[in-house]
Amino acid sequence: MGLVIPLKKEINNSYLELKNLVGNKLESVNQQIKYKLSSEINLIHKMTNHHLKSGGKRIRPLLTLASAKLCGYREGNRDVNLAACVELIHSATLLHDDVIDSSVLRRGVETSNAIWGNQSSILVGDYLLSRCFEMMVDDGSIEVLKLLSSTSSKIAQGEVMQLEYKGEVDILEDTYFNIINMKTAALFSAATKVGACISNKNKKEKDALESYGKNLGLAFQIADDALDYLSTKRVFGKEIGKDFYEGKTTLPIIIIFQRANNEEKNFLIEIFKKKERSEDDFSETLALINKYKAVHASFKRAEYFVNVSYDALGIFKESKEKKILQNLTGFSLNRSF
Amino acid sequence: MGLVIPLKKEINNSYLELKNLVGNKLESVNQQIKYKLSSEINLIHKMTNHHLKSGGKRIRPLLTLASAKLCGYREGNRDVNLAACVELIHSATLLHDDVIDSSVLRRGVETSNAIWGNQSSILVGDYLLSRCFEMMVDDGSIEVLKLLSSTSSKIAQGEVMQLEYKGEVDILEDTYFNIINMKTAALFSAATKVGACISNKNKKEKDALESYGKNLGLAFQIADDALDYLSTKRVFGKEIGKDFYEGKTTLPIIIIFQRANNEEKNFLIEIFKKKERSEDDFSETLALINKYKAVHASFKRAEYFVNVSYDALGIFKESKEKKILQNLTGFSLNRSF
Repeated sequence: MGLVIPLKKEINNSYLELKNLVGNKLESVNQQIKYKLSSEINLIHKMTNHHLKSGGKRIRPLLTLASAKLCGYREGNRDVNLAACVELIHSATLLHDDVIDSSVLRRGVETSNAIWGNQSSILVGDYLLSRCFEMMVDDGSIEVLKLLSSTSSKIAQGEVMQLEYKGEVDILEDTYFNIINMKTAALFSAATKVGACISNKNKKEKDALESYGKNLGLAFQIADDALDYLSTKRVFGKEIGKDFYEGKTTLPIIIIFQRANNEEKNFLIEIFKKKERSEDDFSETLALINKYKAVHASFKRAEYFVNVSYDALGIFKESKEKKILQNLTGFSLNRSF
Repeated sequence: MGLVIPLKKEINNSYLELKNLVGNKLESVNQQIKYKLSSEINLIHKMTNHHLKSGGKRIRPLLTLASAKLCGYREGNRDVNLAACVELIHSATLLHDDVIDSSVLRRGVETSNAIWGNQSSILVGDYLLSRCFEMMVDDGSIEVLKLLSSTSSKIAQGEVMQLEYKGEVDILEDTYFNIINMKTAALFSAATKVGACISNKNKKEKDALESYGKNLGLAFQIADDALDYLSTKRVFGKEIGKDFYEGKTTLPIIIIFQRANNEEKNFLIEIFKKKERSEDDFSETLALINKYKAVHASFKRAEYFVNVSYDALGIFKESKEKKILQNLTGFSLNRSF
């Protein structure tokens, strides 16, 4: 019961520690992305620049850089190049997600589809993904290519599955976990595992980093989904109700549906069947979320994955890198990655 | 002046020759695609099945199979696997193209976006592309991976460039050639070159097959664009005016704009500026197409590439495969690939 959502200050500390750990390598990742995406085609140039400027915390490439460092990777630029690939896979997904969700804002900045239209965003998303495959091929490792290409296909499958279940409130938690495992955790786990792959670590260490990333990704997505129903907008900078209005049945909704009485169940079924949901629908749903403590329950689920993630790194010997990556697991309970 | 558009009968003969040449390997390609795309996710299963059933002539994988045969490739299944990859790159592009063009029919069959919506088509397109990269990685050749991943990124760039110039009638033929080179010819050229790569042929032969495919692809796209303004619907099974209504300024439009008087130029500028074009606009444009013999002029341009394509195979010694691939170049003047 005594679960405490981490304070913003503590959260930011673990993120800043991670950033400091990799030094100027994150800047190299940004440069590499910029260089590789450069195109003579004006529209691509404008759109990729806009996308790069709108930023984000770059948590996935940071994880690759830090994991590589944990594994003793020192010489060469494979960590930077592959961190850039990981970020590009994520970027391509975001461009298409924003079209699918008809989003007009992301992190407070106008989305590419809002400025240049859906058609451009679809095509530039395809461009990012293809370019990213070219970069992976340049890296030249079949092991890494297998890992990242299968990750990319998992993400697409997760996204399709999410769309398939949109509007259904009686889905199992297991189904939800399958979805977030594919659409989110797969890329986190590839981001961290790749650090071990390029350092020629043994299977145990690769598996450990894979598990660390996977569980971190699950915790992150659950926390993200829970925060959609937590009205502390000013603290987390997250607009609430986005998933709700889009008809996505995430963990808090699944939990209240499971705990609800018949009348409440019918209410939930009805509103998620509708093409659009009203503010009143949202208020009533928030009341159920509070009644059944669904945000708290979601964070409890996330806490489990945070713990598994933390302990997965146990096989590595003590180091600054290990400590920082472990501290970061708590950060996953913040949504603003 | 005496250019003759090939008769349907002759055209079909060269296509059938090609099909007979590869025997049951085309069926193996279809099986391989079906097997590789299988997914537990119901929506993916339904959509990929629909897409596979709606068929098409499979000209690109046929080119890969025939090129490999020309180069003496006999043992193993790399020709089948890579032909499947080539077709999948094409399929992923089609799914996204249909969303972008809001198409409801393709080859007389309802499009995926018309049945399952744009969101599903975007995501399943991403799935096809990712799966296809997984298959290429399984093939294991970095040379082939480089070729096909750079092809995929060229296609995306070509598509973006086409979108960027949509509605502009005063574009150069050079710009048009850049666009079709990227969006169409790149994949044809990769499809044929890959046959030489897996047969360990030398650079001369790889270059020859690359040139053959590239020029064939250019001829095909020009012919396709010209036939959009040729009202012989019953013969070619092609609905006319599609590009026109979508505001795409293809070669016939570029040619009439270049040859038009000021009044006609203004007319063309105005109607392509509009969000939608009327049937009257189309009739008037068709009159200009006829006045300036723009379809004929386009076919003359295509004929050039047909000839270059034909002769590019000159370095190969006489064989049944060579003859069939050369005969096929005339087929490119038919749109119904």
